[in-house]
Amino acid sequence: MQPLRLFHYWRSSSSWRVRWALDYKKIACELQAVSLLNGESESDEHRARNPLGYVPVLERLDIHDSSRLLSQSTAIAEWLDEVHPTSPLFWGDAWTRAKIRSLAEIISADTQPIQNLNILQRHSNDPAEQKKWAQEFITQGLNAFERAAAMTSGKFSVGDELSWADLCLIPQCYNAARFDVQLDAMPLLRRILDACELLESCKSSHPSRYEPKP
Amino acid sequence: MQPLRLFHYWRSSSSWRVRWALDYKKIACELQAVSLLNGESESDEHRARNPLGYVPVLERLDIHDSSRLLSQSTAIAEWLDEVHPTSPLFWGDAWTRAKIRSLAEIISADTQPIQNLNILQRHSNDPAEQKKWAQEFITQGLNAFERAAAMTSGKFSVGDELSWADLCLIPQCYNAARFDVQLDAMPLLRRILDACELLESCKSSHPSRYEPKP
Repeated sequence: MQPLRLFHYWRSSSSWRVRWALDYKKIACELQAVSLLNGESESDEHRARNPLGYVPVLERLDIHDSSRLLSQSTAIAEWLDEVHPTSPLFWGDAWTRAKIRSLAEIISADTQPIQNLNILQRHSNDPAEQKKWAQEFITQGLNAFERAAAMTSGKFSVGDELSWADLCLIPQCYNAARFDVQLDAMPLLRRILDACELLESCKSSHPSRYEPKP
Repeated sequence: MQPLRLFHYWRSSSSWRVRWALDYKKIACELQAVSLLNGESESDEHRARNPLGYVPVLERLDIHDSSRLLSQSTAIAEWLDEVHPTSPLFWGDAWTRAKIRSLAEIISADTQPIQNLNILQRHSNDPAEQKKWAQEFITQGLNAFERAAAMTSGKFSVGDELSWADLCLIPQCYNAARFDVQLDAMPLLRRILDACELLESCKSSHPSRYEPKP
């Protein structure tokens, strides 16, 4: 396996997805924090890693030119799964893998990007209106996931094995809690959340483990 | 190949991505229009296909239960590529495929969902402010793509072969034109756009071919 470094932020849900994938697949990776709050992610240094200024970014330390960097959590996860197939996150036959990707995209394309900090700030200066926006789109996304997963779930979002769909869902549930979104009307998501929270790889990659100490 | 039906909308950029993939790979598929404007996409009938009420949705006609439906354009494209590898959209070694996915996600996760019609309408009732929002996020996304593709491009976004990154980029450029976003400061994207517009599969899947006649 190539030596790796992950640029991440403790509270970024997309960063958690990748930390979790690394821990689940037992892939060694150096972590480097990039703050989303103090301007670090907007710096030229980080923009050279990812023009959008987002995390996560994966760096391959065995490559020494600009092609060493990879942005976007799903691209990172698909690559990790291809080069390190143990504990697969995209498993089963082609149609099952498609279902895993479809569920994951409800979160990674149609929920998280819309409740991202810079979107909230662009929408309104009023913290109450920012929260309302986040609550609405998180609720919409999780409700859609609840309905879609009803057709695929077992113990986890798809069948009885952990998949990339779960690694997108649970960090989004963490964001939901931050914005006081209640999951009471989503019994299936609650059950998947409970199952995931028992996993060592979920615990070891959890944002609370990476929160900077004052 | 399984018999297929695609629920799409002529002007939806995500629908165009999939129409293009089908035409490029020469996969036969029945098309069924779902209007995003007259309430059809919000109907119970369409929500049963996709709880978010979005298009595209792919239906496998060889399956007769609820598992026959697949939402999300990237999940559809990855599946089409797995079961019909001719004219691949995710090609090359694992790192190259990762780069294709990373570029595609700049559009599919961090640009298009944020300038989606329902987001614009939720943000503001003022058409001028809606347009300003769309222009800002499309410009941000395309600028990021321009910078990222500078490290991967040949004739197309990645090397000299068409990939899923192009099939996400060009429909986003179409949206850019709708919102009067200028691409003058993005010479690389202009060049890729010119190369793509010569392709028969780009022309045959273009929104203008599917615009309802009055």
